[in-house]
Amino acid sequence: MTGAPPTDDPSTDEPSPDEGARAAAPAAPEPPPEPAARRLAPELRIGEVRRGAKPGTRYVRVTRAAERTVVRTGDGRYEATLRAEEPHSGLSRLRQKLRYGVLGRPLATSRAIEERLSKVKALAIFSSDALSSSAYATEEILLALMLAGTASLNVGLPIAFAIAVLLAIVVLSYRQTVHAYPQGGGTYSVARENLGRWPGLVGGAALLTDYVLTVAVSVSAGVLAITSALPELVDYRVQLAVGGIVLMSAINLRGVREAGSVFAVPTYLFIATFGGMLVVGVVRLLVGDIEGASFSESAPARHEVEAVQAMGLFLVLRAFSSGSTALTGVEAIANGVQAFKPPESRNAAATMAWMAVILGVFFIGATFLAVRFGVVPAEDESVISQVGRLAFGGENVFYYALQATTATILVLAANTAFNGFPLLASILARDEYLPRQFAFRGDRLAYSFGIIVLGTIAAALLVAFQADTHRLIPLYAIGVFVAFTLSQSGMVRRGRRLRERGWRRAVVINAVGAVATGAAAIVIAYTKFAFGAWIVLIIIPLMVLGLYSINRHYAFVRRRLALAPGATVPRLRQPQDRPVVVPVGEVNLAVVRAVAFATEMSSNVTALHVVTDEGADTSEFEAEWEMRFPHVPLAILDSPYRTFQAPFMAYIDALNIPDDVPLTVVLPEFVATHWWQGYLHNRTADRLREALRHRSNTVVVSVTQQLEDEHTARDTD
Amino acid sequence: MTGAPPTDDPSTDEPSPDEGARAAAPAAPEPPPEPAARRLAPELRIGEVRRGAKPGTRYVRVTRAAERTVVRTGDGRYEATLRAEEPHSGLSRLRQKLRYGVLGRPLATSRAIEERLSKVKALAIFSSDALSSSAYATEEILLALMLAGTASLNVGLPIAFAIAVLLAIVVLSYRQTVHAYPQGGGTYSVARENLGRWPGLVGGAALLTDYVLTVAVSVSAGVLAITSALPELVDYRVQLAVGGIVLMSAINLRGVREAGSVFAVPTYLFIATFGGMLVVGVVRLLVGDIEGASFSESAPARHEVEAVQAMGLFLVLRAFSSGSTALTGVEAIANGVQAFKPPESRNAAATMAWMAVILGVFFIGATFLAVRFGVVPAEDESVISQVGRLAFGGENVFYYALQATTATILVLAANTAFNGFPLLASILARDEYLPRQFAFRGDRLAYSFGIIVLGTIAAALLVAFQADTHRLIPLYAIGVFVAFTLSQSGMVRRGRRLRERGWRRAVVINAVGAVATGAAAIVIAYTKFAFGAWIVLIIIPLMVLGLYSINRHYAFVRRRLALAPGATVPRLRQPQDRPVVVPVGEVNLAVVRAVAFATEMSSNVTALHVVTDEGADTSEFEAEWEMRFPHVPLAILDSPYRTFQAPFMAYIDALNIPDDVPLTVVLPEFVATHWWQGYLHNRTADRLREALRHRSNTVVVSVTQQLEDEHTARDTD
Repeated sequence: MTGAPPTDDPSTDEPSPDEGARAAAPAAPEPPPEPAARRLAPELRIGEVRRGAKPGTRYVRVTRAAERTVVRTGDGRYEATLRAEEPHSGLSRLRQKLRYGVLGRPLATSRAIEERLSKVKALAIFSSDALSSSAYATEEILLALMLAGTASLNVGLPIAFAIAVLLAIVVLSYRQTVHAYPQGGGTYSVARENLGRWPGLVGGAALLTDYVLTVAVSVSAGVLAITSALPELVDYRVQLAVGGIVLMSAINLRGVREAGSVFAVPTYLFIATFGGMLVVGVVRLLVGDIEGASFSESAPARHEVEAVQAMGLFLVLRAFSSGSTALTGVEAIANGVQAFKPPESRNAAATMAWMAVILGVFFIGATFLAVRFGVVPAEDESVISQVGRLAFGGENVFYYALQATTATILVLAANTAFNGFPLLASILARDEYLPRQFAFRGDRLAYSFGIIVLGTIAAALLVAFQADTHRLIPLYAIGVFVAFTLSQSGMVRRGRRLRERGWRRAVVINAVGAVATGAAAIVIAYTKFAFGAWIVLIIIPLMVLGLYSINRHYAFVRRRLALAPGATVPRLRQPQDRPVVVPVGEVNLAVVRAVAFATEMSSNVTALHVVTDEGADTSEFEAEWEMRFPHVPLAILDSPYRTFQAPFMAYIDALNIPDDVPLTVVLPEFVATHWWQGYLHNRTADRLREALRHRSNTVVVSVTQQLEDEHTARDTD
Repeated sequence: MTGAPPTDDPSTDEPSPDEGARAAAPAAPEPPPEPAARRLAPELRIGEVRRGAKPGTRYVRVTRAAERTVVRTGDGRYEATLRAEEPHSGLSRLRQKLRYGVLGRPLATSRAIEERLSKVKALAIFSSDALSSSAYATEEILLALMLAGTASLNVGLPIAFAIAVLLAIVVLSYRQTVHAYPQGGGTYSVARENLGRWPGLVGGAALLTDYVLTVAVSVSAGVLAITSALPELVDYRVQLAVGGIVLMSAINLRGVREAGSVFAVPTYLFIATFGGMLVVGVVRLLVGDIEGASFSESAPARHEVEAVQAMGLFLVLRAFSSGSTALTGVEAIANGVQAFKPPESRNAAATMAWMAVILGVFFIGATFLAVRFGVVPAEDESVISQVGRLAFGGENVFYYALQATTATILVLAANTAFNGFPLLASILARDEYLPRQFAFRGDRLAYSFGIIVLGTIAAALLVAFQADTHRLIPLYAIGVFVAFTLSQSGMVRRGRRLRERGWRRAVVINAVGAVATGAAAIVIAYTKFAFGAWIVLIIIPLMVLGLYSINRHYAFVRRRLALAPGATVPRLRQPQDRPVVVPVGEVNLAVVRAVAFATEMSSNVTALHVVTDEGADTSEFEAEWEMRFPHVPLAILDSPYRTFQAPFMAYIDALNIPDDVPLTVVLPEFVATHWWQGYLHNRTADRLREALRHRSNTVVVSVTQQLEDEHTARDTD
C-alpha cells in the first residue's frame, strides 16, 4: 500500500453525500459553468523534466520526455502516468518491484470495468461460503435431533425442506434487493433506507462481525482438516492458519478478477464431486444397490443412540436453527452487485438464483441420503464422509476426491468474506461510517484496506483462540441472522411503501422470511449464549456506536470547515508586517535560508535564540548574528530547565498577538540523507512543528536544507 | 523525558568543539561586542498573557501574570520559568504530575552546583563496584589455584599482594589523570590526548561495554542471591532482574545527589560488617581462638582437592588475572570528576585514595583469613561466607548481616555503572562521538538519556541471557583491562612529554602498570575466549566504528551548513512572483486560509486539484473554485492509479522551475482534537510534507485549521 489515495482536506474530490447518491454516479448533463474570467494555470513546459533531486540517490535522473510522468489532456488539465509512481531511490524501487511481483502491477481506474466478474467467476467467489454449508448443515440437524435418540433422525428431512424453503425466501428477497439497490450494500442499504439509520448500522455491524468470524472459522476448519491428515503439524496450527490468511489476503489484493480465476477451480470441483455423490447415491438407492435403513427400524449396521430428551417443539426449533447455518453467506452477492459485469443487477440476481438452487439441492440431497442410509453423527467421522463412503461404495478415488474438495470448499468459504467485507466496508466508508481508507481502491482496484483489516483481525482472532474451531463456532451465525431479519423487514416496509407490481405477494414472502430468520436468530443466540454468543451481542452494539461516532466526527469536520454560501475569501490582516518568529540555534546555512525567507515575507521578523545551557556564553553568537543579520532583531530566551519547546511556546504566547493576526513561525531544518542520521539530531523542528499545529492561527513554514552526500550534492547543480 | 533539550540546527548554542574546551568552561573575560545598530526584538507586553488556545482543552486559561511563564532579564533577553513547562491539557498535566512524583520536580541548571557530591556520598556511589570485588576476588584466585590441588592455595596470599600493588599503581595513575583532566573522561581523555583518536575511542568503547556488562552481571548476581534464599522465585528471575534495573534507573534519574543518599547507607553498612569480620577474624587468629589451618598440612576440617595440573607460571598468571577483577570499577571516579563538589580534582583524588585503601585492606585481609582458615572454594558456599562463619564463630546475627550486606553491595556495583556510563557517554557526546542527546541533562540534572540507554541495553542483555550470571561473566572485565592499559600507556606518554616534577618516577610506575594490566587483559581474553569473550572482542571494534561514523556525520553536517566567513546573506530570487502551489481537495475553510496566505505571499499561485477517482465529475468543483477564487488559477491532475503523492510530485517537477528559485508549497491542514480522529483522515498532508522535505529548494508552509470541540471553539474567541 504505497500512497493509499488521499481523502481528507486537500484531496477529497467531493463531499461524500450523507444519504443515497454514490460517487460513481454519472454526471447529470447540466451545462458546465463558463470558465471565462479564469486565469490559466502555468502551462507545463513539457519536453524536459528534471526529476526532483532526492538526496540519498546516487544520481539525479533527468527524464527528457515529460510525457512519461505527466501528460496534458486539456486546458489546465493533466494526467499522471505510471512513470510518476516510480520511486527515485534504489531501495524504494526494489521495494516497489517486490510489491509489483507479489501483487501485480497497478491497474488504471479506467480498467475497472475489465475487472468486473463474469457470472461463472462470481459464483465461485461469492458462493463458496454458502455452498460450503452443505458440508456440515445436515450434520448440525442430525446432531440436534440425536438428543431425542436415533429414532428421531427421520425428522431431519422435513426440517431440511423447511430450511430450503427459508433459503428460497431469503434469496427471493435478496434478488429484489439486488434490483432495488444496484450500488450494492445488501442488508445495510435496505435497512438504512427503509428502517432508518440505526437498523442499518446494526445490520452493517452484524455482517462485518460475521465476515470476520467466517474467515476465522473456515480457516481453522481447514487447518483442522490438514492436521487430521498430518498430526505432526498440530503444533503449528496457528502458524498454518495465519499463513493461510496471509495467502488469501495476498490473492485478493491482486484484484477481484484474478482471485476469481484462482478460486473458481476448487469451487467447481466441489460442485462436481458433491453433485456426483448425490446422483450416484440416489441412483444406487433407487436401483436397490444400497440397502436403505430407516431409523425407526434401527438398522443393525449403524450404531444407535439412546434418547436423553423427548422429541418436542423446542428440539425441532433447535434442529431447524442449527441447520439454518446453511444460509450463511447467501447475502454476499447483494453486497457486491458492483463487482459484476453489466447489467450488474441482472447478473447478480441470476448468480444468486444459481447459488440457491445448487445449495438447496445439495442440502436436501445430502440430508435425504443421510436419513435413508441411516447415518448417525459420529465423533470421528463427519456425516458427509459417511454418506460419501456409502454412496461411492467404499474408500475409493471418488471418496477421496469428495473429502479433498470438501476440505477445500470449507477453507474457500473464507474467501467469500474476503469479498463481502471490503465491499460492505467501502459502502459504509462512502457513507462516512468508516474511515475513508476503506473506500479507496488499491493498486489492483481491490479495496486493499478492507482486505488487510479483515485479514489482520481474523489472524488476531485465530491467535487469541489458538485456531480452535470449537471455541469460535458459537460466535458465528448470529450476525448473519440478525442481518437477514433486518433485510427482510426492510423489504416488507419497502414493499408497503412503494407498492410496485406484485407487492402484496412479495410482502407476504418477506414477512414470513423475517419471522423465520428472526426466530432462528433468537434460537441461535439463546442456545449458544453461554458458549460465547454473548461476546457477539456485546461487540455488535459497540461497533454500532463506533460507526456512529465516526460519522459524527466527519459531519462535525464538514460543518467546521464549511464556508458560508457565496462568502468572499477572507483577507488576513497586515500582510506586510505580519509577525514572524524564527528559532535560531547557530548561524548556519539552514538558518540563513530561513531568515532570508522570513524577511522577504514580512518586515516584522524576530529571531529567537533559546539558551538551554544556562552557563553558556552567548556573546559570541550575538556578535556573529549582528554581523550577518544587522537588521533582524534577536531575542535571547534562557531556559533554566534545559527544555526548548515549552519556553518557545511561552515566548510566542507572551507576544500577545491579536487573535485575528496569524503568527508565522519559520523553521530552519536540515534533512539527513540516511535514516540512522535522524537519530543523531534531536528533531527539535519536528516536535516544535507538532506543538505549533495545535496552536490556533499559527502558520508553520519549513525551510529545509538537504544534506546530500558530498558527491551527490555536486551532481545536483 | 519530556522535551529532551534540543540540540541540532535551531537550538545548539555553540558548535561543539572538536577538541578540548568544554561547554561549561566560564566565558573568557573579553569585552562584549557593541550592540549599537541592532534593532531590538519586540518587547513582550508582560502583564496579560493568553496561553495558546489548544484544542482538546475544555477551557482556555488566561494567566494574568506573564512573569509566570517568561520574565524579562535584560534588553531583548528573557528567561522562561517552571510555569512554562506546564502542559495545557488535563491528560498531559496528569502525566507530568506522575513524572514529577516518580522522578522529582525539575531542577534549574543554576542549581547544578548543589547537586554536586560530597566525598562521603561519592565514595558510596563510585566505589560500590570496586568494593564489591572483595566479595568474590579472593574466591577467583583460590578457584584458579585449586587446579594444582589444595596444597597450592597458600600461593593465594602473595598473589593477592601482587594484585594490591597493581591496584595501587592503577589508582596512583588515575589520581594523576584526575588532576590532569579535571573535566573528567578518565581513560578516554588520557588516551585520546596522548595516544591519539583511535586509542581514545577504543578505551571509550571498552569502558562503555564494560559498564553495560557490570549492570547485567551485578543485577543477575543479586537476583541469584534472592532466588537462593527464596527458590520459589526462580521462575521470575528475569522479571526480578529487569525490575531491579528499572528501579535503579528511576533512582538515578532522580539525580546524582539523591541517588548518593539512597545508596550510601548499604555501602557503609557493607564496609562496617566486612571490616568487622576482618578485625574479629584477625584478632581471634592472633589470640588463638581459631585454629589456623595451613594447606600444606591439610587440616582435617576442610575438604581436600586433588591436583589436576602442576603448579606453574601459567597457573599463577591465571590466578593473578582472575583475582585482578578486583580492580574493575576503580576508573569510575576518573570519569566523574565533575560530579564532585569543588575543588573537584582534589576531592576526587582523595575519594579515590580512600577507595583504594579500603579495597586493598579488604582484599588482602579476606585472602589472608581464607588462607589461614584453610578455606577451600565450594560449589554451594562462597569463600567469604565460609570465612565469615569461621570469623564470627557460627551462623549468628553478625554472619547474617555480612551475608545481607555482601549481597546488597553486589547489586549496588551496578550503580557505579549507572554513574560511569552516562558521564562517559556525555563526554563522548560533547566530542560528537555519540548522539547529542547523551550530553543533555534531564529534569533532575542527571544525564537521563545515558541512564535510560544503559538500563535498556542491560535489561535486553538480561532477557537474552535469561539473567544467568555464569553466561555473562566471561564477557566481563576484558573491557576494563583494555581501558587500564590504554590509560597507563597514555600517562607514560604524557609524563615523557610534559616532564613535570617527578615525572620519571611516575613514568616508571605507569609503565609497570601498563605492562601488568596489559598482561592481565591478554590472559583474561585468552582464558575466557571460548566462553564468550570473543563477543566483546567483536563488539568493541564495531562500537569504535560506530563512534567514528557518528563523528564523521556531525563533521559533515557542520561543513555543509557552514557559511563562508563574512559572507552576506543570500537573497532568494523573485520574491514577488515566487512560484507557489497549493494542493486543494474541496473548497473549505482550511483551503481558503491556505490560498489566502499563498496569494499574499506571491502573485504566482497555482491551485492543484488531484483527481484520484477518475470517474468523478469535477465540473461542480471547478465552478465553485471559479466563484470563490476567480483570480487563482486551478490545475486539475487526473491520477489514474488513484495515488496522490506521486502525481503531485511529478507535477511540480514538470513545472521546470530553475534550480535557484525556491518552490513554495502551501498545505491546507486541519488538526483533529482527539488522537483517534487522526485515523479517520489520510494524513495526506503529513505524507506529502515528508516527501517535500527531501526535495531540494522547496519550502513547505502549513496553514492549519484546528478542529476544536464546538463548545471549546466558542470559548476561544
